[in-house]
Amino acid sequence: MVKIPVSRAEAEALDAQDPLHGIRDRFDLEDGIIYLDGNSLGPPTKAALARLQKTANIEWNRDLIKSWNDAGWIDLPRTCGRKIASLLGVDGDNVLVCDSVSVNIFKLASALLNQKPGAIAYEQGEFPTDGYILQGLAQQTGAPLSPLPADQPDALNENVSVLVKSAVNYKTAAVADIAAWERLASDHGVAIIWDLSHAAGIIDLNLSRDGARFAVGCGYKFLNGGPGAPGYIYVANEKIADLTQPLSGWMGHASPFDFADAYEPAQGIRRFACGTPPILSIAALDAALGAYEGVSVSAVEKKSRALGDIFISLSTEYGLKTVSPGPGEKRGGHVSLSHPNGYAIMQALIAQGIIGDFRPPDLMRFGFSPLYIRYTDIWDAANALKTILQNDTWREPAFAERKKVT
Amino acid sequence: MVKIPVSRAEAEALDAQDPLHGIRDRFDLEDGIIYLDGNSLGPPTKAALARLQKTANIEWNRDLIKSWNDAGWIDLPRTCGRKIASLLGVDGDNVLVCDSVSVNIFKLASALLNQKPGAIAYEQGEFPTDGYILQGLAQQTGAPLSPLPADQPDALNENVSVLVKSAVNYKTAAVADIAAWERLASDHGVAIIWDLSHAAGIIDLNLSRDGARFAVGCGYKFLNGGPGAPGYIYVANEKIADLTQPLSGWMGHASPFDFADAYEPAQGIRRFACGTPPILSIAALDAALGAYEGVSVSAVEKKSRALGDIFISLSTEYGLKTVSPGPGEKRGGHVSLSHPNGYAIMQALIAQGIIGDFRPPDLMRFGFSPLYIRYTDIWDAANALKTILQNDTWREPAFAERKKVT
Repeated sequence: MVKIPVSRAEAEALDAQDPLHGIRDRFDLEDGIIYLDGNSLGPPTKAALARLQKTANIEWNRDLIKSWNDAGWIDLPRTCGRKIASLLGVDGDNVLVCDSVSVNIFKLASALLNQKPGAIAYEQGEFPTDGYILQGLAQQTGAPLSPLPADQPDALNENVSVLVKSAVNYKTAAVADIAAWERLASDHGVAIIWDLSHAAGIIDLNLSRDGARFAVGCGYKFLNGGPGAPGYIYVANEKIADLTQPLSGWMGHASPFDFADAYEPAQGIRRFACGTPPILSIAALDAALGAYEGVSVSAVEKKSRALGDIFISLSTEYGLKTVSPGPGEKRGGHVSLSHPNGYAIMQALIAQGIIGDFRPPDLMRFGFSPLYIRYTDIWDAANALKTILQNDTWREPAFAERKKVT
Repeated sequence: MVKIPVSRAEAEALDAQDPLHGIRDRFDLEDGIIYLDGNSLGPPTKAALARLQKTANIEWNRDLIKSWNDAGWIDLPRTCGRKIASLLGVDGDNVLVCDSVSVNIFKLASALLNQKPGAIAYEQGEFPTDGYILQGLAQQTGAPLSPLPADQPDALNENVSVLVKSAVNYKTAAVADIAAWERLASDHGVAIIWDLSHAAGIIDLNLSRDGARFAVGCGYKFLNGGPGAPGYIYVANEKIADLTQPLSGWMGHASPFDFADAYEPAQGIRRFACGTPPILSIAALDAALGAYEGVSVSAVEKKSRALGDIFISLSTEYGLKTVSPGPGEKRGGHVSLSHPNGYAIMQALIAQGIIGDFRPPDLMRFGFSPLYIRYTDIWDAANALKTILQNDTWREPAFAERKKVT
């Protein structure tokens, strides 16, 4: 475990030695802001802003319809998918950028259920949309719905066809042992769809090694793809041909530009595409992934863990409870602290330019994206939090009213 | 019917009298290009380019997560939907911008099928994705699939639960009589989902008056929302509460930010939302719709018909066949001409900066968006087409190889 700094100077020394320190220059972050919400909405890279301008002002505005071919728009779901694949530890041909996490869960769960009828399962405490989508699918197909107790692999059984499970829990940042789950799932013939929304780009995933065959994720958290950036879908090579999904739109057709009457799914991962992809949003995501160029995800995971360890070690006072795995334990890229007045405390932090988020009823989440967060940021944020609690700053009326945030 | 100009001077006179003439300034079109492909990908308005920059460089880059509330991102699917509603002749609260046409057909057809089991139908010659999606839904639910002969309202019968039908055919630009179809559908208890992709923003729709209760459409054609701009969904007020759709993602939940375990659909049109919306793409669409500010869609329809009438009248020679409704007839915003060498002829036109598109096997499509296309453009395009045919310019080898286009 990292040595916890006892002074700002020690935090500065950690920054000076940090192999990722220079990566922050790829972003255009404002001075005086400590942005600890990259687990919810990553900030733009300079390259993403430039790419968006190029895609809009040159490709769309000047080259118009030609850009579908000449600027590679038509292939963007796959070229962008290849970049994500390298963060997941899977073959580049097996990831497609498309739709949202919710829609992609529906596609994959439907396809798997069609192959092996049975119960569709999700864990209690899972990010809500994962369960909501399975509820919709259960209602549509008549498949039994099976909410399982959290993190109890023993609850898996032969009746379950599909389990949707986060690799990193959105509340606690607990990290699932993917290989262990896959071994159990394999024993019971269960297909696991991994929701990588809070894991990709922050945990050194190696899905191929760990036997994971199905996954979805979003582009707007640690991947910094922009607000509501499209999601992605991963299917292991040997499984693709077995699966047909019901959202069989023209972009998933073997030959979309033949305008044939009958739907024939594409051979590869493209069979999971549906409608025309939102190019402006995918272009931003594609450029954002450039932030990982030359960066080892293992170094990212290590630094993120160190940042979290330090933050927790400096913050466990004044009635704060650590909901996340503690210092030295495996943890995703964020830390959740609970406090009955968490909402107001977070507002008081935000008023000082330290931006995290709040999840009801009492969770403050702090995201540590190692691409741009410094050890000194953590030192400053932890100390600001302490001061707010020592001085009861959060009791000011301005911090009381709850607003919705994503 | 408009008087067909017999000289460029007469076309110039038509431009001078055109009440929409000034609207072209809202776009940033390049000199020397005649862009007749707005039926496939509309060009950007100046406002859309500016808005995209603001959304990226200010809202995302500077204001970060706060923009979900402060910049109105969270409400954008509805605020943008209101602008589209005014083009459809429906209540502003009943249109939501979300996902793609394909995904939205799936949602609506599933919900309607769930309410009244029966066959799901589409017309032969329909835009392929509409049929593909119904094929996927049929396979998933076991509902019988019923491809109907084109444009034969008599084929409707009691066994049909849902019919997906384009208001303007993507190939021919033939316009459906929505009110007449709805009367017949009502006799047989059929729900029609209107695909407005080639109709919205070009035909003076009045869905409420005509009894249409369900519709979807795309944002990237005549609405100029950008490549792959999200689609939209319309459901008449009295029908919303009856329908639950299976793509029940968190954005369609009554209280998405309560993170409740059970899915409870929102009361209004928002129950048709699914995952987190792609904000960059919706922002561009939202700004693009400003091109219709102060513009009467009835004037748009009238001018588009006049442009088409002139183009057809000047082009029916040299082996070209008009596939679209002829001069004086009701027609959408594009004209399709067939020619066995249509692909090469279109390439020869494109080489001269006159941009239309090609649909196999032999269709050249020319889109006339009255917001920026001038009578002189039509004069020039028709004469260029004539010259290419007179001189057999299209036989040059450079024009022979077929590329995919959208």
